Amino acid sequence: MAKVKKQPRPKAVTPKGFRDYFGAEVTQRTEMLQTIAGVYHRYGFDALESSAVETVEALGKFLPDVDRPNEGVFAWQEADEDGKGDWMALRYDLTAPLARVYAQHRNDLPTPYRRYAMGPVWRNEKPGPGRYRQFYQCDADTVGTASMAADAEICAMLADTLEAVGIPRGDYLVRVNNRKVLNGVLETMGLADEGQRDAVLRTIDKFDKVGEEGVRQLLGKGRLDASGAYIDGVGLSDEQAAPVLAFLTSKAADTAATLANLRAAVGDSKIGAEGIAELEQIGTLLAAGGYGPDRIEIDPSVVRGLGYYTGPVFEAELTFEILDEKGRKRQFGSVAGGGRYDGLVKRFTGQEVPAVGVSIGVDRLLAALREKGRLASESTGPVVVTVMDRDRMADYQAMVTELRAAGIRAEVYLGNPKNFGNQLKYADKRHSPVAVIEGGDEKERGVVQIKDLILGAKIAESATLEEWKERPSQFEVPRADLVAKVREILDSQD
Amino acid sequence: MAKVKKQPRPKAVTPKGFRDYFGAEVTQRTEMLQTIAGVYHRYGFDALESSAVETVEALGKFLPDVDRPNEGVFAWQEADEDGKGDWMALRYDLTAPLARVYAQHRNDLPTPYRRYAMGPVWRNEKPGPGRYRQFYQCDADTVGTASMAADAEICAMLADTLEAVGIPRGDYLVRVNNRKVLNGVLETMGLADEGQRDAVLRTIDKFDKVGEEGVRQLLGKGRLDASGAYIDGVGLSDEQAAPVLAFLTSKAADTAATLANLRAAVGDSKIGAEGIAELEQIGTLLAAGGYGPDRIEIDPSVVRGLGYYTGPVFEAELTFEILDEKGRKRQFGSVAGGGRYDGLVKRFTGQEVPAVGVSIGVDRLLAALREKGRLASESTGPVVVTVMDRDRMADYQAMVTELRAAGIRAEVYLGNPKNFGNQLKYADKRHSPVAVIEGGDEKERGVVQIKDLILGAKIAESATLEEWKERPSQFEVPRADLVAKVREILDSQD
Repeated sequence: MAKVKKQPRPKAVTPKGFRDYFGAEVTQRTEMLQTIAGVYHRYGFDALESSAVETVEALGKFLPDVDRPNEGVFAWQEADEDGKGDWMALRYDLTAPLARVYAQHRNDLPTPYRRYAMGPVWRNEKPGPGRYRQFYQCDADTVGTASMAADAEICAMLADTLEAVGIPRGDYLVRVNNRKVLNGVLETMGLADEGQRDAVLRTIDKFDKVGEEGVRQLLGKGRLDASGAYIDGVGLSDEQAAPVLAFLTSKAADTAATLANLRAAVGDSKIGAEGIAELEQIGTLLAAGGYGPDRIEIDPSVVRGLGYYTGPVFEAELTFEILDEKGRKRQFGSVAGGGRYDGLVKRFTGQEVPAVGVSIGVDRLLAALREKGRLASESTGPVVVTVMDRDRMADYQAMVTELRAAGIRAEVYLGNPKNFGNQLKYADKRHSPVAVIEGGDEKERGVVQIKDLILGAKIAESATLEEWKERPSQFEVPRADLVAKVREILDSQD
Repeated sequence: MAKVKKQPRPKAVTPKGFRDYFGAEVTQRTEMLQTIAGVYHRYGFDALESSAVETVEALGKFLPDVDRPNEGVFAWQEADEDGKGDWMALRYDLTAPLARVYAQHRNDLPTPYRRYAMGPVWRNEKPGPGRYRQFYQCDADTVGTASMAADAEICAMLADTLEAVGIPRGDYLVRVNNRKVLNGVLETMGLADEGQRDAVLRTIDKFDKVGEEGVRQLLGKGRLDASGAYIDGVGLSDEQAAPVLAFLTSKAADTAATLANLRAAVGDSKIGAEGIAELEQIGTLLAAGGYGPDRIEIDPSVVRGLGYYTGPVFEAELTFEILDEKGRKRQFGSVAGGGRYDGLVKRFTGQEVPAVGVSIGVDRLLAALREKGRLASESTGPVVVTVMDRDRMADYQAMVTELRAAGIRAEVYLGNPKNFGNQLKYADKRHSPVAVIEGGDEKERGVVQIKDLILGAKIAESATLEEWKERPSQFEVPRADLVAKVREILDSQD
């Protein structure tokens, strides 16, 4: 007899680089997104939700990863009649879809168009620790105006947002730079060769990592990196490299002094002067709104995204220290960034459409709040009504109905009720604050037992005998007082 | 000289079957999801968010579309070293991922595990009018208990949810049926041939569309459909088909009478009796919670999903009438459905894990509320501070900062301010309630002009000269009274 071949069981695993989020992880993010949406909305931004899927054609290749311009997205080919349809892909950010949406609907949208968008994006990259292939972005952009008031507004909104989600003033800083000033520096240096300009840009991008001396070496002959490998330099002379270093280190005690340093760094470059004027305008507008350098400051050492953006660039950093995996103190670092960009819509329409936007790293912000103890790591579970008598399920159901009607999170134990210990273990696993017990005896006497599980755990852990006597954690009350007594216990636990 | 070949511009279009959602469409859905999450949470359900991407292996082929078991999902093959990696796909519902999550994390999860999940799912199907390839689902499931209390709870929660989102009692009905009763009917009929049983199941699925007489014909010789095509029947005799029709039409004046009819239909089938006992238990538990037949009723004509589920099946319908595209009255119909299923987790672990769940069609619910005029089709825009003097941008920025600090949605006009008419047109496009104007003259006198745009539009439309004189829609107030006056106007507009 031929044996029926058994289908092997599928493996129950998330795909590599993806993960599941449970309970508080989900609701805390949802709450944060709602808080952020509230601030964005108050600033006049409208919600937009585009689909997760775009044509590869519309999406373009805007991922900042210059080494692999063709990779980085999850893409597939549609099967049409001939089996060969359009290429589709999951969006890798919320900016490329915005460009497509604006080009497609521009006649129906107001100009300027302020929109916010929040949702997951996908990157087909090698996953690493804490680095996932699906993560949330939370963006606000203003499309269709070149006014620096738009840039200033987004910086102010970013500061307001950080405070709204629970980062107090003093624990964050929004730093502003301008790509045009860098262009002015490059012009002053007289670098005619585009390859060399790109090499300088890439070098500047490493400023965060290698610091002033590192950049100096990389602009010149080269540098031994931490692994011992020798990295070839751009080959500039010290004199040639000087304006770049002057630019990167031009931050001074106040905005006026910083701008003066930048003026020196760009010499008489027109584009450089334009960039400095823009920074000055942003500074003036922010000052008028009461946003001083304790919240937002001009800082030319901000280099992230300088290669991508075309005008002002900004970054929000959390300035408090945390301990890294190895127990060393370090600053928490960047949680949001943005800037001005021109090319995105032009791809579709041929017309340059000025735009400026910001993207908040929601998962990093949540991690920061957890780090600071400002978010509970677990949410409180429901009140659990235990089942002492399987045939009286309707009685227990009536209890939870009453509790829920009073706005109290509650459930009947739905597992096998035979073993009462399992019911209490279940309540423990759910982080339940209260358990309700009604056996046959209680039913007869018209009472219920109510157990304060939080107090119970505390007493079990540390109470003296006196405390234990004084503060019982289980109460017998008339059935009619069920809701009132549960409410009282819950209030006492806050 | 060789001409540089121009890259053609990408088309700015959503992929076929996908769409963008703007403003109120997004925020109303978000609010509804939050309201639903609130009810689910109160019932003790915990949030779960799994990734949009699963391995095809884990996802399985559970789409109810039996004609195309291999299709229906968006899938692609990962590129590993050899270019041939795992197959991945976008989730097509939230139940298949739940099965994977439960199998993967079952040792860390409480049993029973109550979870809710909400988010987009993707179907690679032919799009049609109002039928998109990405849409929202909003599910709650209880995994790991066979107790009918879990099914009753989910039915009660569904009723509570519909009322919480704004469907009043009387405008909806949750109808409950049971697959086991149908199995009992099939057993009674003595259909040994599995092919014939499947054919009967498929026929029953058409009851919604073709009615009693249609099912009778399709179970027998066949039927001419609306297009004039002849559909072959299952080939049963009238006597053989009778129990099926008795089952489908057994709904009576009250639950007891309905159950009596069902008992007659299943004869002495054991599985049938089991199904009827389950329905009876659900009815008793719901009655104890105060959920009468005005909200939830046993109705064996519910056939959607009978092929998929293994025990109780339920469906929520909105019972009010709407006008269809052709102006004919029809019932709005189904907005949610669910039931008990056993096989999902077993695929992974080999163990049967009982589960029951519900899925709410959020987009259909939103459409219903719009249809009934219970959702605004447009959200109110921001207060617009117009720009009369480009050099005084900082003044205008200070105004919106004040307004926002008072919780009022406000923005400065950021387009080209030269043409004032364009600024008012912009405010109109944004559905702005109020415009603020401060020219040089006003600045000098320390006042601002505040225009009530809603009243202005109303007056322009219909007011008599007297009304127009009595109720001016533009006010001059001291600059210091800006926030108070805007607030007053906004309050008067509610």
